[in-house]
Amino acid sequence: MERHFDEQLQGLKSHLMKMSALAEVMIADAVKSVVERDAAAVAPVYEREELVNHMQIEIDEICLTLIALHQPAASDLRFIMGAVKTNSDLERLADEAVNIVQKAEHLLKVPQLKPFEVIPEMATIARGMVRDSLRAFVNRNVDLAREVLLRDDRLDDLKAKMSEVLTAYMTQDPAAVPCALDLLLISRFLERIGDHATNIAEVTIFVVEGLDVRHHADQQRLTHRPHAHV
Amino acid sequence: MERHFDEQLQGLKSHLMKMSALAEVMIADAVKSVVERDAAAVAPVYEREELVNHMQIEIDEICLTLIALHQPAASDLRFIMGAVKTNSDLERLADEAVNIVQKAEHLLKVPQLKPFEVIPEMATIARGMVRDSLRAFVNRNVDLAREVLLRDDRLDDLKAKMSEVLTAYMTQDPAAVPCALDLLLISRFLERIGDHATNIAEVTIFVVEGLDVRHHADQQRLTHRPHAHV
Repeated sequence: MERHFDEQLQGLKSHLMKMSALAEVMIADAVKSVVERDAAAVAPVYEREELVNHMQIEIDEICLTLIALHQPAASDLRFIMGAVKTNSDLERLADEAVNIVQKAEHLLKVPQLKPFEVIPEMATIARGMVRDSLRAFVNRNVDLAREVLLRDDRLDDLKAKMSEVLTAYMTQDPAAVPCALDLLLISRFLERIGDHATNIAEVTIFVVEGLDVRHHADQQRLTHRPHAHV
Repeated sequence: MERHFDEQLQGLKSHLMKMSALAEVMIADAVKSVVERDAAAVAPVYEREELVNHMQIEIDEICLTLIALHQPAASDLRFIMGAVKTNSDLERLADEAVNIVQKAEHLLKVPQLKPFEVIPEMATIARGMVRDSLRAFVNRNVDLAREVLLRDDRLDDLKAKMSEVLTAYMTQDPAAVPCALDLLLISRFLERIGDHATNIAEVTIFVVEGLDVRHHADQQRLTHRPHAHV
C-alpha cells in the first residue's frame, strides 16, 4: 500500500512536469508566431492546448484518488492540495499562450509595426519562471521557489515599459492603434504567465514550510508584491 | 464525529458565502469609483482586499482540516476539492476589483472621457455571476450553475463592444489614448471576473455530476466556450 502510494505520487509529479513542458512549448510557439511572424507556429499551440486540458482533468482525478484511497499524512495531503492548485495555474497559463496566438492571427494579416525586443525577453523570463516554479514544486525546493518570485518584478517592469512605449506610439500614430493594442495585450498575457508561475512558487513555500507567503510576510518574500496584476 | 464534520462543512460554506459577498461589494465600489468618479469608493476596496486575503488562507486551512480529520466520503471529498478551487477563484476575482480601482485612481485625475453605460452593465452581470456561482456551489445547484455559464457570453460581447468603441476613440483622438486604454482594461478586468465565476460554476457541475464541463462536452454547456479569455 505504501509503495503504491509513493508510485502514484511519483506519477502525479511526472504528469505535472509533462504539463509544464507542454505549456512552455506553447509559450515559445505563441511568441514565435508574433516575433518571427511565423504562421506555422499558430496551429501547434491550439493542438497542445487540447492535451493540456486533458491532462488537467487527469491530474485532478489522480489527486482525488490519492486522497480517497490512501488518507495521506498531513505533509503529503498539503502537497496534494498544492498539486490541485498548481494544476489549475498550469492550465490557465497555457490559456495565455492561446490568447497570444489569437492576437498573432490578427497581427499576421497586417504590416509589422516594429520589432519589439521586449516581447522575446518577457517570453524568456516567463518560460523560465514556469519551468522553475514546477521544478521547485515537485522537488519541494523553497530556495528555487523564492528565486522565481524575484523574477516576477523584472516581468512587471518590462510590461510597464511596453505599456509606455506603445501608448506613445498610439498617440503619435493613430493608424498604429489596433496593432499596438494587440502588442500591449500580448505583453500583459506574458506578465500573467509570470503571475501564475508566482502562484505556483508561493504554493511551494506554503507546502514545504507551512508558511503562507501569499498575502503577508512581505519581508520573507523579499521585494515581491503578490496581488497586483495590473 | 459525524455532526462535527457537518458543522465544519457548514462553516466552510458560510465562509465562502461571506468571501463572495465581500468580493461583490469590492466590484460595486470599484466600478462606482470609475463611473461616478467617486474617490471615496477607492479605499474600501483595498481594505476589503485584506479581509479577502485573510479569508482565503483560513478557508484553505478549513479544507485541509476537514480532509485530515474526517476522511470524508467521495462526494464530500469532491466538494472540498471544489471549495479549494472556488476559494482561489474568489480571491483572484477580488484582485480584479483592485485592478479596477488602480485604473480609477488615474482616471480620477483627468477629465472624464465620456460616460460609458457599458461598464455599469458589465459590472451588474459580473456581480450577479459571482453571487449565483457561489450560491450554485454551496447548494450544489447545477441548474443555476449552467445558467451562470450562459451569462458569460453577454459579458464577452460587451467587452468586444467596448474594445471596438474605444479603439475607434483612440484612432480619432490621440489625446484620448491613455484614458481609453484604462477603460479598455477595466472592461477586460470585469470580463475576467465573469471568467472566474464561470470556473466556479464549472466546478459546481463537476462536484455534483462528476461531469467535467471544463474542456469538452460543449453541447452540455450549451453555447459557452470555456477557455478563450481574450
